[in-house]
Amino acid sequence: MRTANSALRSKDLLGIEQLSPEDITLILDTAEGFKEVSERPVKKVPALRGQLVINLFMEASTRTRVSFEIAEKRLSADTLNFAASGSSVEKGETLIDTAENLMAMHPDMIVIRHKYPGAPKMLAERLPASIINAGDGGHEHPTQALLDAFTIRERLGRLQGVNVSIIGDIAHSRVVRSNIHLLTKMKANVTIAGPPTLIPMDIERMGVRVVHSLQQAIQGADVIMMLRIQLERQGKLTFPSLREYYNTFGLTPERLRGAKEGVIVMHPGPMNRGVEIASDVADGPWSVILEQVTNGVAVRMAVLYLLGGAHMGGE
Amino acid sequence: MRTANSALRSKDLLGIEQLSPEDITLILDTAEGFKEVSERPVKKVPALRGQLVINLFMEASTRTRVSFEIAEKRLSADTLNFAASGSSVEKGETLIDTAENLMAMHPDMIVIRHKYPGAPKMLAERLPASIINAGDGGHEHPTQALLDAFTIRERLGRLQGVNVSIIGDIAHSRVVRSNIHLLTKMKANVTIAGPPTLIPMDIERMGVRVVHSLQQAIQGADVIMMLRIQLERQGKLTFPSLREYYNTFGLTPERLRGAKEGVIVMHPGPMNRGVEIASDVADGPWSVILEQVTNGVAVRMAVLYLLGGAHMGGE
Amino acid sequence: MRTANSALRSKDLLGIEQLSPEDITLILDTAEGFKEVSERPVKKVPALRGQLVINLFMEASTRTRVSFEIAEKRLSADTLNFAASGSSVEKGETLIDTAENLMAMHPDMIVIRHKYPGAPKMLAERLPASIINAGDGGHEHPTQALLDAFTIRERLGRLQGVNVSIIGDIAHSRVVRSNIHLLTKMKANVTIAGPPTLIPMDIERMGVRVVHSLQQAIQGADVIMMLRIQLERQGKLTFPSLREYYNTFGLTPERLRGAKEGVIVMHPGPMNRGVEIASDVADGPWSVILEQVTNGVAVRMAVLYLLGGAHMGGE
Repeated sequence: MRTANSALRSKDLLGIEQLSPEDITLILDTAEGFKEVSERPVKKVPALRGQLVINLFMEASTRTRVSFEIAEKRLSADTLNFAASGSSVEKGETLIDTAENLMAMHPDMIVIRHKYPGAPKMLAERLPASIINAGDGGHEHPTQALLDAFTIRERLGRLQGVNVSIIGDIAHSRVVRSNIHLLTKMKANVTIAGPPTLIPMDIERMGVRVVHSLQQAIQGADVIMMLRIQLERQGKLTFPSLREYYNTFGLTPERLRGAKEGVIVMHPGPMNRGVEIASDVADGPWSVILEQVTNGVAVRMAVLYLLGGAHMGGE
Repeated sequence: MRTANSALRSKDLLGIEQLSPEDITLILDTAEGFKEVSERPVKKVPALRGQLVINLFMEASTRTRVSFEIAEKRLSADTLNFAASGSSVEKGETLIDTAENLMAMHPDMIVIRHKYPGAPKMLAERLPASIINAGDGGHEHPTQALLDAFTIRERLGRLQGVNVSIIGDIAHSRVVRSNIHLLTKMKANVTIAGPPTLIPMDIERMGVRVVHSLQQAIQGADVIMMLRIQLERQGKLTFPSLREYYNTFGLTPERLRGAKEGVIVMHPGPMNRGVEIASDVADGPWSVILEQVTNGVAVRMAVLYLLGGAHMGGE
Repeated sequence: MRTANSALRSKDLLGIEQLSPEDITLILDTAEGFKEVSERPVKKVPALRGQLVINLFMEASTRTRVSFEIAEKRLSADTLNFAASGSSVEKGETLIDTAENLMAMHPDMIVIRHKYPGAPKMLAERLPASIINAGDGGHEHPTQALLDAFTIRERLGRLQGVNVSIIGDIAHSRVVRSNIHLLTKMKANVTIAGPPTLIPMDIERMGVRVVHSLQQAIQGADVIMMLRIQLERQGKLTFPSLREYYNTFGLTPERLRGAKEGVIVMHPGPMNRGVEIASDVADGPWSVILEQVTNGVAVRMAVLYLLGGAHMGGE
């Protein structure tokens, strides 16, 4: 599995924007090898034994944290969860002080989720540990884009030339930003659709096509990626109602009739069934949503492994 | 320790109701072997190395979670705690979606505590992982009944023919339901006592005798099992007051004078001292309450081991 | 590294008050060996493999908990975190019942943080496990004093005869009490300074000198230890304002001009920059604040190791 070019050029994974197509291919190739580990009876390799990974989640995100934690354990790393609540952060400590304090305990890597865009970069510049961005505000969520790409490549055999339509709340999604960076770098064709109020004015500059109806987005797509409507923000919604949203942008089996044969449907989760996606689609033959979750562990193992600089051996 | 019949017939432990007397005996026999592991300087066997157990606690229960987590670690499993708070569950995700997402990460077993009766069964039917019920609403709490049975068998040498009196809030207790299933299957004699408002109308159909005074329940009992009055529900209590409860159904040293020589007193914890049980009883020579806790780890190790299908070896 | 006298005389670490100078020296010498472990690529020794350490934090303290947890993992112990929230403690269980229940699961050591002075001692008297005090109310925080002493000794080569000035809220600080015990036992000279309302009347009985200005405290000091002003208590502050505090007792580069060459500045963290300490001092050449954090892991490894009674071997 290992090649001569077996390390990322950077000590950190801050975003897809900084990665080269070669970096992306290296991560995806490495993840392929790790996917098999999770299917063994003994789901563990000693790659990161004796290394410490701190999961610094300053914003709640059980799914992403769990996926990283499982990836870390399957690499035999020691893991430590640090959440904002109940911590010195509540006593007014700054992120830099928290991070420098954690660093003084010699972790090898820090996985950080933070509400402020750029928080991972700030740590990466100051700390010798490898920093992995697990979502920073509306900025990037690189491992999500990597697992999406892994899933597309595994299903369709390639990324180049694949037509990917991303539908929903484009404006507030870090997942979209990371995905657009990745897909355009890998020469996929990206189409964006959603209510006009949820599409940023200048999104075309990122190299994507914008359409305003679900029908247009579905047509010709090899991949349909539905985004989560953040119900937490309800009351501040910039569209009339959830029912209205479902009627306009909800993905139903009927609407999928207009799609290409073999189209796959993706969703980063957690889903709002009956809002952005019908249950019959979520659980239907088009859906690769649970494969995305499975691949998330493999992709995170690959990132941790490549940044850890360790060499995978047999046990 | 291993016999030819060394696995449970089911992939899951959903309740005592589904177990045969042979299954129960297998679990208790296996737990005997594991009890010794917790007394070693190195409290660990490699039985579940490289297997992932997720503790999915959708209802707070530190004691049961801690007991399972220790059991998992002593079997060398990788463990992951998933609690409802702060998770995608709070973002409106259904239990099925949460579970399918966790399943996509290939856990080998899921230990679930949930407020809805039947939640573990729902998961067991859909997921290939082994599901262990750690308490589902008012339905069952099978590992509690198993550890109670282990304790009785260890102390009295048998379950058959033993007179067990269970006293307190019968109506709201999953522990009682699991215990009645287990004890009647193993041919113990079960007597129930408590305030009439806390005894379900049709409880006799489960094969138990109902009495209405503590004195009657104590008389002739080999085992007195006191239940917790759930103070959390105070205000909704269906009896006059805690003092009144203590005066009527609280177990005191005086009242124990009417008991058989060698009677043992059990409580699933956490105790309300001075409500259902006097401190002098809880800490007295009759009490096996802390042995129950010790045995809980051994019984949970046995269940995890038998469902894990792994084979225990020396290190 | 090991000497004939390789164990503490007590099974517990309740406070510095109970330690002899030999005990303190043994812990600091042992920590020296462990500091190197945290700098290896594989940051782990098998000293406590198969031993269970429970971190019983009944008061929030992420920093101290994280430091202990890392120390435990680097010694290969199994660790379990038990917090008050969501636990049976919330259901009204007493500390003794909680502890006896945990004990029944055979942990080897319990690290306890509790708001009541004496809580660790109460456990130590009743439980066979080794109890480590991680802070009990205003009483003691022995591992903090040990890591402070380790840092001073490492920087200045000795403790005897060193002039240490401790500045700030003396009255509410367990850190000060533990430090005074340790430093006076090791024949360092301790000076105390702070607003008169924050200095206990009888503090001189502990063998320290009291001065009332920052200038006097700085003069001649080899070590300046700044204490945290507990902003959480604001509103109940016994001095006019934070600004006023900074103007009187805040440590600034200007004020440090009156200090001895080579003076070091310490702080137990988390810092309030601009209240008790200026950022230029916290991040300046005098500061050993992050070294304290690093040394905290080494000192806690030493304490766990010495109480664990295990013997450190190579892997």
